[in-house]
Amino acid sequence: MSKPLILITNDDGIYAKGLKALIEVCRPIGDIVIVAPDSPQSGQGHAITLNDPIRLRQVKEYEEEAYKCSGTPVDCVKLAKSVVLNNRKPDLCVSGINHGSNASINIIYSGTMSAAMEASLEGIPSIGFSYLDYDANADFSACKKIAKTLIEKVLAIPPDNKLLLNVNIPVLPYDEIKGIKTCRQSKGNWTEEFIEALDPRGEKYYWMTGAYYTKETATDTDIWALENGYVSVVPSHHDLTDYRQLERLKTII
Amino acid sequence: MSKPLILITNDDGIYAKGLKALIEVCRPIGDIVIVAPDSPQSGQGHAITLNDPIRLRQVKEYEEEAYKCSGTPVDCVKLAKSVVLNNRKPDLCVSGINHGSNASINIIYSGTMSAAMEASLEGIPSIGFSYLDYDANADFSACKKIAKTLIEKVLAIPPDNKLLLNVNIPVLPYDEIKGIKTCRQSKGNWTEEFIEALDPRGEKYYWMTGAYYTKETATDTDIWALENGYVSVVPSHHDLTDYRQLERLKTII
Repeated sequence: MSKPLILITNDDGIYAKGLKALIEVCRPIGDIVIVAPDSPQSGQGHAITLNDPIRLRQVKEYEEEAYKCSGTPVDCVKLAKSVVLNNRKPDLCVSGINHGSNASINIIYSGTMSAAMEASLEGIPSIGFSYLDYDANADFSACKKIAKTLIEKVLAIPPDNKLLLNVNIPVLPYDEIKGIKTCRQSKGNWTEEFIEALDPRGEKYYWMTGAYYTKETATDTDIWALENGYVSVVPSHHDLTDYRQLERLKTII
Repeated sequence: MSKPLILITNDDGIYAKGLKALIEVCRPIGDIVIVAPDSPQSGQGHAITLNDPIRLRQVKEYEEEAYKCSGTPVDCVKLAKSVVLNNRKPDLCVSGINHGSNASINIIYSGTMSAAMEASLEGIPSIGFSYLDYDANADFSACKKIAKTLIEKVLAIPPDNKLLLNVNIPVLPYDEIKGIKTCRQSKGNWTEEFIEALDPRGEKYYWMTGAYYTKETATDTDIWALENGYVSVVPSHHDLTDYRQLERLKTII
């Protein structure tokens, strides 16, 4: 029986430790193709490159066929599909392992999850993995075990071309992780504060910073799961229709 | 009674014709503040600028307080809220009028809609307007009447801080538009094709192109509405949880 074809991507770039962790997990499971950004692309959301040419260069650092791309994470998936795989469809796309949380509202800013979503738009079951440790040298050993478990589970069920999972992993030794919990996306926000400063020519600039906050305490959310020692798994999708508003609006508009 | 405070933004840039149209519509309705990108930002999705400083410069082209921002459309909204308005909350945010469709799946790539969504995340009722004419010199006269109608309707109802509308307007004279139709986001995709070429130094590059396709024919979608002469209004939101998958996954994971 042929091995499943797995497309691997991320938003932290082709040489990120989290990407290497995911490659090591997938190597014994499937045939791998890697297409990842040539530079960090955190916060790129679902951006695509329309007004510039995009470069795609093969790299030799991995045993597998691997490319670095000058575009966004979504560009990587589009180029992987159309150019690298020549429209051969992977059995699974995995994105990450991101250095930092993509739980709650972070999903909409996340290059990691946008890459996974783009693959799911193409009918490829997809999983985005994120680790709540922002350190570039974070220890991914627990993450690798979690990723292996989830990837094998997804490959074992009948292929579901609508499957898109947002997986976040708390910073805990593997033995202290309480389990894997399916949840909904927690309501939450960033409070933005901008650092204001002057450049060497005396002109003002701003640098984005901020803190996440939520008022939610419900136990069925991803934030609750992570704060209580669980891996959170949120099934996600790209239908942004607010069906609850839909009926109400018909009477207004 | 004080006039409503309206934040105006877009993704085509501070000098785009569609932005000017929206300013003209809002001028008699409310007090206006404008924060828009200093260059075209189409396809930027929900990207934010984390790794670079952002510039915000006041411009004098409009009667109202107006700023151009070096960042993405989402950056514009964040800076508008935190810096320009100093956390004073607008009664409404309008984004656009975009030069080109943001119906169906285009919403996730759209800077116009991401700006509106960012405002809605901050509890500001928001409307993104898009016109199906991609021409930089498109005639926005019908759009302006539609925008006026919808903005007045939204301001007339009790403030709903979850309201986020994706409004798309077909290319028709005003008298031939059949009405305004509340709909769901149509399922659909882009087939990507990349133009492959060589740069002057002989290195390969790719340029993204593509065509939209959908298999859906249902009459409750935005694409149907637009193809049949209606303005489409899709209530949207940022909860990406796929609730239909949620229950099913609990038995698998």
